[in-house]
Amino acid sequence: MDSVSPRPDGPRLDADALAALHRGTLAEFLGIRFVEVDPDRVVAELPVRDALKTVGGAVHGGVLMALADTVGAAATFLGLPEGATTATLESKTNFLAAGRNGPLQAEATCLHRGRRTMVWQTRVTEAGGRLLSLTIQTQMVLMR
Amino acid sequence: MDSVSPRPDGPRLDADALAALHRGTLAEFLGIRFVEVDPDRVVAELPVRDALKTVGGAVHGGVLMALADTVGAAATFLGLPEGATTATLESKTNFLAAGRNGPLQAEATCLHRGRRTMVWQTRVTEAGGRLLSLTIQTQMVLMR
Amino acid sequence: MDSVSPRPDGPRLDADALAALHRGTLAEFLGIRFVEVDPDRVVAELPVRDALKTVGGAVHGGVLMALADTVGAAATFLGLPEGATTATLESKTNFLAAGRNGPLQAEATCLHRGRRTMVWQTRVTEAGGRLLSLTIQTQMVLMR
Amino acid sequence: MDSVSPRPDGPRLDADALAALHRGTLAEFLGIRFVEVDPDRVVAELPVRDALKTVGGAVHGGVLMALADTVGAAATFLGLPEGATTATLESKTNFLAAGRNGPLQAEATCLHRGRRTMVWQTRVTEAGGRLLSLTIQTQMVLMR
Repeated sequence: MDSVSPRPDGPRLDADALAALHRGTLAEFLGIRFVEVDPDRVVAELPVRDALKTVGGAVHGGVLMALADTVGAAATFLGLPEGATTATLESKTNFLAAGRNGPLQAEATCLHRGRRTMVWQTRVTEAGGRLLSLTIQTQMVLMR
Repeated sequence: MDSVSPRPDGPRLDADALAALHRGTLAEFLGIRFVEVDPDRVVAELPVRDALKTVGGAVHGGVLMALADTVGAAATFLGLPEGATTATLESKTNFLAAGRNGPLQAEATCLHRGRRTMVWQTRVTEAGGRLLSLTIQTQMVLMR
Repeated sequence: MDSVSPRPDGPRLDADALAALHRGTLAEFLGIRFVEVDPDRVVAELPVRDALKTVGGAVHGGVLMALADTVGAAATFLGLPEGATTATLESKTNFLAAGRNGPLQAEATCLHRGRRTMVWQTRVTEAGGRLLSLTIQTQMVLMR
Repeated sequence: MDSVSPRPDGPRLDADALAALHRGTLAEFLGIRFVEVDPDRVVAELPVRDALKTVGGAVHGGVLMALADTVGAAATFLGLPEGATTATLESKTNFLAAGRNGPLQAEATCLHRGRRTMVWQTRVTEAGGRLLSLTIQTQMVLMR
């Protein structure tokens, strides 16, 4: 009952269209680049520079969480029913290793696709595939 | 047993010293300003601009999480025993209202101060005191 | 907009009525006793026995989480609009100290009361007021 | 650096030995049965009865969290260095579907195995493989 399929007439966005949509927002400010866009999987990359680091020289946890939130929200958007919008209800991240030189790669996959909520899991890795963080977030589906 | 007091010889940093420490890092890049610095409570502010927003025009959840992570880590740093460093183990945020024009204010208060971990709770509010998000994060205390 | 008041004609349940409602469920099986019931605050107690402990002799984390989930769901129920039901979307617990002899006391207070979701925070303490755990949970409000 | 292998001389426990260890604790009280025991994966089952349900007749969220906490802690125990103990630092659960008749099956797999912490992910499914909940928990490794 509480499930939807990506709608046949849903937004058909590729990586370039997603980039255009995010112009002027945090995603562009940080330097996030969408590289794979599929209704069940969104992948983005982010080069690392000093402005994205902590005092200690590691990739800032806030960057890992912002990157995850961005790909999870984009993935939800791609599966929204017509006229619906989405908002993040909650997000939980476990930090597993310190990131250094990047580039970061974030891959969001779907854990639950319901009429009222979607749950996405995003793994952020660094060059070589080392897992830096795992985020699970719940997106509310809001019918206008 | 598993508790420490802010050490008498601990780092005595005021808001200016914290700002200097964060120069060139994500905190400065986003525009975070430390305004109150106490071993049990750290407050910071962040003006809102388009570059910190989502496609939908709300303050980006990643900004709220990065702000919380920054004040929680700074608060932990102020209470570290000599020679110790800290890393965020995990962070969980509930988003309670959409932020619009800011400025954001983040207040971190201590839930647990142990020898091995500290747990901080950060409330982010917007002008007028509306609660936008609540973050709880666990910091590991690492003895070198 | 996204807020509701405890409805004037809402369920008016006292601790005895809540206990009757929970007969035969996990709450009774564990031994949970509701002691204060208010639309913005629900308090329950739970005596500790060996069957609620871990191999190491501490109060089991699962007991702390089940206790929190029970009072948070009960508190949500008291504020539901007519004809609505509730389900827990997610729950996050930080464990701050090991519980030993109890009794446990759990106090749920409201962080957010919306039309679609409610967010409750539950503190579980042991005799003497020592904080054992802090749970934050999101309840979905489901209109039939 | 921050990683350990399951030690060659570590506790070699099979499902029966784990059951014996948990006698008289919450695991036995709920009816949890360990069915597969491997250093990187622990599986347990739990038949469902009314005493494990909510007022609404679903499997209680507290049962799903207690089951996950039990298998996650057991899995950590199997990989502890000699003389170490473990405690759950934090646990986060997303509830994805309501459980009804069971039996429940919980499978814990390792996300991170460090010297100071281990992170486990536990999926709880119902007959037919329907995913009811996903828990991620952080275990502290405590050297005495």
